[in-house]
Amino acid sequence: MTDDHTDDHGETAGMSEAELARHAEKMAKKKQAREKIMATKTDEKGLIIVHTGKGKGKSTAGFGMIFRHIAHGKPSAVVQFIKGAMVTGERELIEAHFSDLCQFHTLGEGFTWETQDRARDVAMAEKAWEKAKELIRDERNSMVLLDEINIALRYDYLDVNEVVSFLRNEKPYMTHVVLTGRNAKEELIEIADLVTEMELVKHPFRSGIKAQQGVEY
Amino acid sequence: MTDDHTDDHGETAGMSEAELARHAEKMAKKKQAREKIMATKTDEKGLIIVHTGKGKGKSTAGFGMIFRHIAHGKPSAVVQFIKGAMVTGERELIEAHFSDLCQFHTLGEGFTWETQDRARDVAMAEKAWEKAKELIRDERNSMVLLDEINIALRYDYLDVNEVVSFLRNEKPYMTHVVLTGRNAKEELIEIADLVTEMELVKHPFRSGIKAQQGVEY
Repeated sequence: MTDDHTDDHGETAGMSEAELARHAEKMAKKKQAREKIMATKTDEKGLIIVHTGKGKGKSTAGFGMIFRHIAHGKPSAVVQFIKGAMVTGERELIEAHFSDLCQFHTLGEGFTWETQDRARDVAMAEKAWEKAKELIRDERNSMVLLDEINIALRYDYLDVNEVVSFLRNEKPYMTHVVLTGRNAKEELIEIADLVTEMELVKHPFRSGIKAQQGVEY
Repeated sequence: MTDDHTDDHGETAGMSEAELARHAEKMAKKKQAREKIMATKTDEKGLIIVHTGKGKGKSTAGFGMIFRHIAHGKPSAVVQFIKGAMVTGERELIEAHFSDLCQFHTLGEGFTWETQDRARDVAMAEKAWEKAKELIRDERNSMVLLDEINIALRYDYLDVNEVVSFLRNEKPYMTHVVLTGRNAKEELIEIADLVTEMELVKHPFRSGIKAQQGVEY
């Protein structure tokens, strides 16, 4: 839980001994309060996790969770809805080392402005969704990552009601499903357990820097 | 570049043939425009990358980039400034399989409300920063991840001016440095090339769900 810090300010620099003692006391109280809260968090369930927003890190953090699953020896699967010609690093690494723990399916055909053929885009998205359903229904998978599915939903290549209804009614209780991509639909956010919006604050493309190996792909 | 989509709306559902043809033309123009823009992005340089905000995925996306480096056979290193007792999955996986490509150093001692000893926190943060400088100076490393350094900076365990000045003046030109953690200081954002704010939209702890293996750690 590296991401879960309190919002109190650290203002101990240059404190007197009495002040430091009060600081220690305050921190002890905070620890107690935190432990009390955490003790109420006892349930486990498979989460519907959405990474959206215009910033970086939506797919990267999704793959990070897949690597966590691999680290713990838990089976998982990835369906890429949009072929990221550039997101090949993760696939190569997983296929070379961990193909027994993680299935990798790339069914998308590139962005719409590259294919310029809506019927084909719809067919590919439906094929990817069929595969996704099969992998989610398979209870051996502890996590299924639907990479860039939000793009397919946004362009109505897939019906969001169909996806929402499947996740609500057919997802096994303990299976985590991660859905990434910009412009996540409201219907999806509504049923999700964990939603993070990656917001773009600053981007190097603005200063003429190209996508680089190990960073963007 | 899976994260880089245009903001045009997909409204082709139920279009006539003439409309579909216009759609194809529009997409072709968009592709052209995109290629023209991308052609101006020709430089490569080591980036200063910051992941901040209250949402999930800051560390996870950082580790995702480390895995990309591993996938491409590029050497990298990780310094954890705050011992995430729970972020052990990545370390175990890297140490078991890729220790030749990625060095992993955990020097932090837990959150301040757990240690309750400011002098010790400062000493540990300084030790971690010394290791970080050594790893960044070593030009063999293509990327160095300073996980949760923002926490140490925010509590003034480390001087942000010292960190900023080092990154500005001593970071090798081609080395990427990733700095994660909430409340990134303004001085750091100022010199960064790529800044993403992970914003919390919805969190399962609110409904009594605890941190789970493969998701949070």
